[in-house]
Amino acid sequence: MRRSEPGASGLREDDLVAAIEAIVGSNADARLLVGIGDDAAVWQPSRSHRSVITSDASIEGVHFTRATMTLEDAGWRAMAANASDLAAMGARPVLATVSLGVGRESTRDDILALYRGMAECARESGMAIAGGDLVRARVLTIAITAVGEVRPSNLKLRSGGYAGDVLAVTGELGGSWAGLQAALGSATLPSDVAQAALLAHRHPLPRLREGAWLAASRHVHAMMDCSDGLSTDLDRLCAASGVGAIVDAVPVAPSALALATTRGEDPIDAALSGGEDFELIVAIAPRAFHHLSTRFAAHFGRPLHRIGTLSKAKGLAVLKGAEHVPLVRSGWDHFEA
Amino acid sequence: MRRSEPGASGLREDDLVAAIEAIVGSNADARLLVGIGDDAAVWQPSRSHRSVITSDASIEGVHFTRATMTLEDAGWRAMAANASDLAAMGARPVLATVSLGVGRESTRDDILALYRGMAECARESGMAIAGGDLVRARVLTIAITAVGEVRPSNLKLRSGGYAGDVLAVTGELGGSWAGLQAALGSATLPSDVAQAALLAHRHPLPRLREGAWLAASRHVHAMMDCSDGLSTDLDRLCAASGVGAIVDAVPVAPSALALATTRGEDPIDAALSGGEDFELIVAIAPRAFHHLSTRFAAHFGRPLHRIGTLSKAKGLAVLKGAEHVPLVRSGWDHFEA
Repeated sequence: MRRSEPGASGLREDDLVAAIEAIVGSNADARLLVGIGDDAAVWQPSRSHRSVITSDASIEGVHFTRATMTLEDAGWRAMAANASDLAAMGARPVLATVSLGVGRESTRDDILALYRGMAECARESGMAIAGGDLVRARVLTIAITAVGEVRPSNLKLRSGGYAGDVLAVTGELGGSWAGLQAALGSATLPSDVAQAALLAHRHPLPRLREGAWLAASRHVHAMMDCSDGLSTDLDRLCAASGVGAIVDAVPVAPSALALATTRGEDPIDAALSGGEDFELIVAIAPRAFHHLSTRFAAHFGRPLHRIGTLSKAKGLAVLKGAEHVPLVRSGWDHFEA
Repeated sequence: MRRSEPGASGLREDDLVAAIEAIVGSNADARLLVGIGDDAAVWQPSRSHRSVITSDASIEGVHFTRATMTLEDAGWRAMAANASDLAAMGARPVLATVSLGVGRESTRDDILALYRGMAECARESGMAIAGGDLVRARVLTIAITAVGEVRPSNLKLRSGGYAGDVLAVTGELGGSWAGLQAALGSATLPSDVAQAALLAHRHPLPRLREGAWLAASRHVHAMMDCSDGLSTDLDRLCAASGVGAIVDAVPVAPSALALATTRGEDPIDAALSGGEDFELIVAIAPRAFHHLSTRFAAHFGRPLHRIGTLSKAKGLAVLKGAEHVPLVRSGWDHFEA
């Protein structure tokens, strides 16, 4: 179960999710291979097939505002968030359904703009929009469910990491955060840097090809996306895998680097807590990392960034200078908002 | 695509859905067998399997209010609406995902009550709740996606009806409408009748066993559920099948009969427009109807109600006395609200 931003005041997220899991109960159906707790659920329609399903909602005023992006962008992002969850399982997207809640003040053009954005992302991700529901709501509410397929041997979970594994990410982090600041008018950036940041925020690219490619390697032990920020999502991967992590390098997007520096903030913190970058976090067998990252760079023309290692000792730490600083979740941990 | 109640003022529903379909585009993936336009979408994970997927959202203040039902009931109903769409395809439910939007004023108990209702219905329907998303929202927003499976030969669409087919429904109609009136305090009914009506409204039973049983017969040509009211949903079945219909009998729930009579209204109209009864509308080869309905009654201990026939002439009519009265959509056609 992905957990994003309930504002139910006074609620503790982990407590609530545990209570929900107790109500939902254990999984009696042997064909449901993965239930609540990963980027997506996995079931087995037949012996040789695995289907993967994920749901992710975006609500106006919470996940997007018209002040910072167009409704085409909001539609794209909502679909991209679902595609990214499939990418993190190594799955190929097949189809999506859309439950769209429409406020009374929404126009036909608003709805079609959202659909244009969703359809563009679905098309580029190889998904058909197969149906859904159109309901009245207070504000624009986009609830998408996406289904993908994966070969049984390629399925990657967030629970597969081992102590000693190399941790890597598929791209630079912090770009979406810098783009949001630029869209809010609270960032002064050179225009080309601002443009790149806005694009990262409004039109993020789910790492589907990278996910499928990495999933095909048996040396890749665990994957998840870092849509809620590296510090938060890495904590979840470590909890699921029963390990800790030491982060000793973080690839920071140039826009985040420029913005943090201007503000006198640590760029690493922006990259650790930014969120919504839709890069994949990958745990890789140490002896295979060099070969895999070399092939990755040759194949995609971009590096697979080494960021640290999984450790037997629980807890997360980040190496700053010569010092290990405890890494606290600073991404979207939303009950606390 | 199911269509429920967008309040986008000045929008015409059919126009909007057509525009959305144009944006979504034709389905390029040959494995997506049914896209937008039926109770659920159908795809083919492997040659011998068909998976069915449906999405249905419920929003507080639009689809339910705490004045007329508990949050357990609201959760049950939201899950039942999805299960009913699967039943209408002849599918066996497998799993569901839940995107739950939570307002700031919602308590932990509210969320768990919703989940208790959803989990109870999922369990009784044979579905595992496999994951989802928990987000902040303005009001309680329940967006559920359910997946089922069906043998290729058992899949039933709303487009399969032929002129001459017998039309039938799996149960009495109008009970949920009467229950809503009772819950609103605007119905004076004998207490046992009121209790039955409240139950029909708050705890509707999706016709999963009936749907699977009917789907196994090759004489059943078309099915859909009538969650939006018989007049509206029959119009959709006829449009998809390219036929018309003459309705000459409607089984009215005793509560709806009593309430309509007290109010001096026609009970048939209550049954035609009531909605949310979650019964199945079935089109059956005429020569097979007698045998099938006899077996249905023996198997389920309840009749399969004959309500009319599909006709070559387009349009819907209802026989009142000796007169054919044009039947106009009077169910949930929601853009007009």
